[in-house]
Parts: sequence; C-alpha cells; structure tokens
Amino acid sequence: MKQSHLSRRYQRTAGAEAAPPAPAPRRQPVINLTIGDPDKTTDPIITRAAFEDVLAGYTHYAHPLGDPELRDEICRYYREEYGMSIGRDNVLVTTAGNVAMYLAMQALLDPGDEVIVATPCFFVYFEQIRMAGGVPVEVPTFAENDFRLEAARMEAAVTPKTKAILFNTPCNPTGMCYDRAGLEAVADIARRHDLVVVADDIYTALSFETPFVPIASLEGMADRTVTINSFSKNFTMAGWRIGNIVAAPDIIRALGQVNDCVVFGAPMPSQRAALHALRNREAIVPKVVELYRERVNYAFSRIEEIPGLKAVRPQGTFYLFPDIRGSGLSSGAVVARLAEEGVLVKSGADFGASGEGYVRISCTVGIEALKEAFDRIAQMPEFQ
Amino acid sequence: MKQSHLSRRYQRTAGAEAAPPAPAPRRQPVINLTIGDPDKTTDPIITRAAFEDVLAGYTHYAHPLGDPELRDEICRYYREEYGMSIGRDNVLVTTAGNVAMYLAMQALLDPGDEVIVATPCFFVYFEQIRMAGGVPVEVPTFAENDFRLEAARMEAAVTPKTKAILFNTPCNPTGMCYDRAGLEAVADIARRHDLVVVADDIYTALSFETPFVPIASLEGMADRTVTINSFSKNFTMAGWRIGNIVAAPDIIRALGQVNDCVVFGAPMPSQRAALHALRNREAIVPKVVELYRERVNYAFSRIEEIPGLKAVRPQGTFYLFPDIRGSGLSSGAVVARLAEEGVLVKSGADFGASGEGYVRISCTVGIEALKEAFDRIAQMPEFQ
Repeated sequence: MKQSHLSRRYQRTAGAEAAPPAPAPRRQPVINLTIGDPDKTTDPIITRAAFEDVLAGYTHYAHPLGDPELRDEICRYYREEYGMSIGRDNVLVTTAGNVAMYLAMQALLDPGDEVIVATPCFFVYFEQIRMAGGVPVEVPTFAENDFRLEAARMEAAVTPKTKAILFNTPCNPTGMCYDRAGLEAVADIARRHDLVVVADDIYTALSFETPFVPIASLEGMADRTVTINSFSKNFTMAGWRIGNIVAAPDIIRALGQVNDCVVFGAPMPSQRAALHALRNREAIVPKVVELYRERVNYAFSRIEEIPGLKAVRPQGTFYLFPDIRGSGLSSGAVVARLAEEGVLVKSGADFGASGEGYVRISCTVGIEALKEAFDRIAQMPEFQ
Repeated sequence: MKQSHLSRRYQRTAGAEAAPPAPAPRRQPVINLTIGDPDKTTDPIITRAAFEDVLAGYTHYAHPLGDPELRDEICRYYREEYGMSIGRDNVLVTTAGNVAMYLAMQALLDPGDEVIVATPCFFVYFEQIRMAGGVPVEVPTFAENDFRLEAARMEAAVTPKTKAILFNTPCNPTGMCYDRAGLEAVADIARRHDLVVVADDIYTALSFETPFVPIASLEGMADRTVTINSFSKNFTMAGWRIGNIVAAPDIIRALGQVNDCVVFGAPMPSQRAALHALRNREAIVPKVVELYRERVNYAFSRIEEIPGLKAVRPQGTFYLFPDIRGSGLSSGAVVARLAEEGVLVKSGADFGASGEGYVRISCTVGIEALKEAFDRIAQMPEFQ
C-alpha cells in the first residue's frame, strides 16, 4: 500500500499521531473556558414545537434552499428587526454558520482571490478561504484601540486581487462590536473598491452596549453583502446545526448549487426548530442575553482586579480576550500554565497574528465556575 | 458593480434565469416519480426517543467526529451485521451521505487525480469529484448485462493518475446489486493497482435478492475502503441528514479535518435519532424493505406489459431504470412527453453518458399512484 491514500494536503496532519497528553492538572475540577457552545440547553418551547412537526411528517428533504415557511419567517425577522426588505429568493437555509461561510467562500472565490479578514478572528475562516483557493489577508485590530477596525489600515490592504472583506460583529474572540460609523467605514471601502462583504452575524443578540445593525442594511450594501446568521448562539442551538444566508438572488442561487454537492438541504428537524425559535424569540432571547451579559461582566470585573491581566470592557459575545503580556509569557505558555491550574483557555495566537499576547476566555460556564477559575488565576505568581 | 461577484465557476449557471416553466400537464394529478426521498415518514419510535434525548440536553455540539455513543453503536452494527471489527476511531458521523462523499473527495484527491466511476450513477458524484480538483472517469455498465460491472472494462480505465474507484451498490439509478464475485473483481483491481475504493453503501437494506455485503469486509480491503453509510433510505430519514463513514483511522482523521471547515459536528438531534434507529432496526427496517420491494416488483410487472419499455428485473433500491429506446425518442424527449401526461421521471442521461436511452422511475409513491402512472404510460402511442 502507498504511504498514504490521502490528498497531499491532508497527509502530514492527519497522518501525525495525536499530540502527547498534557500533564495532569494540579487543581481539580478542570474548568473548561475554551468552548464556543452556549452551555444552556435549547429552550423546550423550541424543542417541543419542532418535534410535534417531526412527528407530523417533517422528516423529508426540505426544498434545497430551505423550507419555504422558514425562509418566509427569516424574511419577516429581518423586516421586523432591521427594517430590511428581503424575499424568499434572498435566503438560503444552511447547516449552521460554519457551512454558510464555507459555501460563501466556495461560491465567491477564484484561485488567488484575496479576502481581507479583520483579526483576531474565528480561526476556521483562514482554512475556509484557502480551501476555496483564496488568500486570507489579515488586517489586525488592537486592544489599545478597543479592537476597533482602522479603516485606513483596511483600505491599505486592498489590492487588484481583493474580492471580499470578511468580518464578524459582535466579534469572536475579542467581544468587540462595530458601531454604525465603523460599519459605514467598511461599507464605504467595499463600495468604492467594488468588493463583497461577508458578514458573520452570528452573535447579534449578544451586543450589550448598542443594538446590532447588519451591514447589509446600509445604503447600497444589500446586493454586495453575504450575511451569515446562525441560531447557535442567539438561541443556544449549536447542536442543531442551523443557520441561514441572506444575499442577492444570484448569489443565493450559486450558494445553493455549491450546497447541492455538500449538504444538500439542511436538516428538517433543525429547520422546524429554527422556525419556532424565530416565532418565540421575544420569550427566549432576552434570557439568553442576560445570562451571558452577567457572566462577561463578572469575568471582566475579576480581570480588572488581577495585575497581570487587562481587558477591554466587553461589548458583546460571551468571550473575553485579555492581554496576558503582563505575565512576561507567550500566549502558548500562559495556556499551558493555566492548564496546570485546571483552567483551560485558548491561545490568542490561534485567532490570527495579532492575537499573540492574549488568551480567549469563553463564559460558557456558570458564575460559580468562573469565580473558581479567577480565584485560581489571581493566586498565580505570573499574574501578580 | 462588477457584472458578478461570484466565482467564475458559478457565474454562468447561477446568473442564468430559471428555465421557462414546462407546459402544463394535460393529465392530473401530476405523479412525481423523480424523488429519491422515501415517502414514508420516519418511524415514531425513532422520533420519540430522539426527542426525549433532545429535551434532556442533547442540544450541544457533539464530538467533531460524532457522538461517541453513536459511533460505538455503529461499530456494533457493523460487527453484528457484517462481522466487521471496527472501533470508534474508524467512524466519522456525517451530515448524511452527501456530505460524506463530498468530504471523501476533498480528503483523498489531489488536482488531476482520476476517479473511476461505474455509471449510470448518482449524478452529484461528478461535481463532487470536480470540486476536489479530480477527474471523473466513467466506466459504463449496460442493461444487456444487467448493469453488472465488467472488470476488464474497469481495469482498462486505470491510469497512473487513478486514485480511487467509486461505486454504489445497491445502485441508484439502475437498481443493480453487486454479487460477491462482482465485489471481489473490484477489490482485486483496487489491491493490484493500490487504489482506494469509495463505496456508497446507502441502500444496503434495499437489496432484495441477496444479502448486502460491504466491500470493506473483503480480505485486505478494510484499510483501502471508504464506506459511506446513510440513514436516509434504510430508515426513511432523509430529512434528518445523518450518515457515517467507516475507514482507516488516518483517513477518518483527515475527513474530520475537512469537516471541521465544512459542517463541523453533525446535528445532534439527528445523531440521537440515528442511535435509536440502529437500536430498533429489527422493528423498523423490514417494513421499509417490504414496502419498496412490493412497489418495485409492481412497477416492473407493469413495465413488462408495455411494448415500448423494457427493464432489468429489480434487485434493489426503489428505482427502476427502464430502456425507452423502443419509443424512438431520446431520454429527454420521453421525460418531456411523460410530463405532458402528468408523470414526472428523470432522464437517464443525467446519470452518465451510458444512461441515454433510459429514464429513472422512483417508487417513492404508493401503488395506487404507480398504477395510475403506468396506466397513462401504457396508453401513450410512443410505447406501443
């Protein structure tokens, strides 16, 4: 047999044995602050209504672009929440936001096309761009500037090969939220250079300071924006794998063509759950928002008391992205040291070059567990 | 704005307006025999058990390779049904068989790699191969030979660029089932030329004449076979979008890496449904098999009575692939003529070059509807 049957691209990484296990933590229980999945179980209002539908026969393929009833409800949602006027042919239901982004890169990019990505960002973007033959071009943002995008820096990254700008607000991992002026700056660059904007709008409800505004709703942006929405975070439905894209009809048709070869229609039980989630959002979403707002504010207050850590005041998401440079250690070394103390976090360097010097803390555990985690961190000599 | 923001690959097709609507059928009701989705709703045993699990908290991300409990149950299934000895690291749970095939092509192929595909076949394979940079190489099968694969013809298609053999038994669209000698012939070619076999084993229960045998279970094939399994057809669960891959651990790891950028973990409610499907298969599957066996046998008996049609005796699946050349018309013309009579079928030409001269009939409607469809066909002058 050949050394490997795999594509060269995957031979090295998949062939490698798993990394040796980390040394056992000295402190128990282990508190896992790496997880992007809300810990709260999906509201039973959603689950019960979805399963009534499934028992009644919703176990078949949906329309490849998504259950028309759900697509209509998504249109209603965008109209009621954001005043956007969209129709069924502007909507593709996807198997969560991850597939949505994958499809978008496949449908938009030709080999060599550049995608400007505001970083630190969700690390999967880089590989999704590369898998479509594209080239990610990082435009860093900095804690010193509250992780706000500097428009001049973004515009300087535009080349004749630039096809799209990819950004995410509220932002994983920084918790930053673009204000309207920030969105206008991105929109202005996109319009002047004829670029597509791919907006990863999956934490919309978790915008604590100012109401979320979709960049697609700005003047002249509807036809050049691919908006990705997900039910994973706003409705604590990550395991259902359901989301949607809003875009111009020709883009939706192309995304559908790609998806026919990937997932085909999204899972029908999850589509029905999404429908009932939207219809019951007033009863469900505010509780989710309050839960995570309370936790990130608590975590931020603890970070402020620890000399070797500092963080930007959280604006959204359930993440904090504290600066750990006061420890004198790299992000990787801090992750390892925290693991010894039984506190698992992600290295900021995973989220792009400008993430070195930071770690990401997910507030997807309760206040008690956060308290224990920060009590341990506060005692570590590295952070004195 | 540019003429299109889309990748060149998708500009022409997605930019085109939809085809003009076909003329209204003369006969009502329209009987749709194009659908690959079993019409039977998922057994409520499955739905109720899955729903209990979801209410109890299974609304979170699964392990990226799949819920360990489900992966263990899949191992037990392969051991009990086929005597295969596999472990959890041989299994990736996927968002149905379509994603499984997409991931397999992405993980296996380098640009220019050739994939030998026995045709007529499920038409999406061609594009899935191309999207991974591969080249599909058709090896036709013929009704005159009961659509059996001719090993010499397959071997003649092997070149230094051949990476894999892709085949599907029981076969969509022909209904053919490989016997053990046929499987051995494919395995022999794969072993001698060091090729991967990608086995699309998604109609396994619908093998009416002889028990299904996975090619992965043949001597020396476990490490070079990527087996795709789906719950869509055997358990009438197409809308749940759930399936799995069985392969060597290094291949599973690579498939998982690809999937991290595509769907990430499969939908959890669907994974729980799959678990309960396997556990209750004795109570569920035989009813499904009897239903479709009765229908295809009925449809075959009707085809035998129509002078202008002939078909190979159905061995499996819920499809028939009759030869329509007696009509003197092309497959496309027959599809159009049948549509005028309110009977929708798929053109055989959609399933590969050797499918011209045939149409695919899906028995995913009840006997009454099949009777009405064949009554209409029997009266058409083209088939006298």
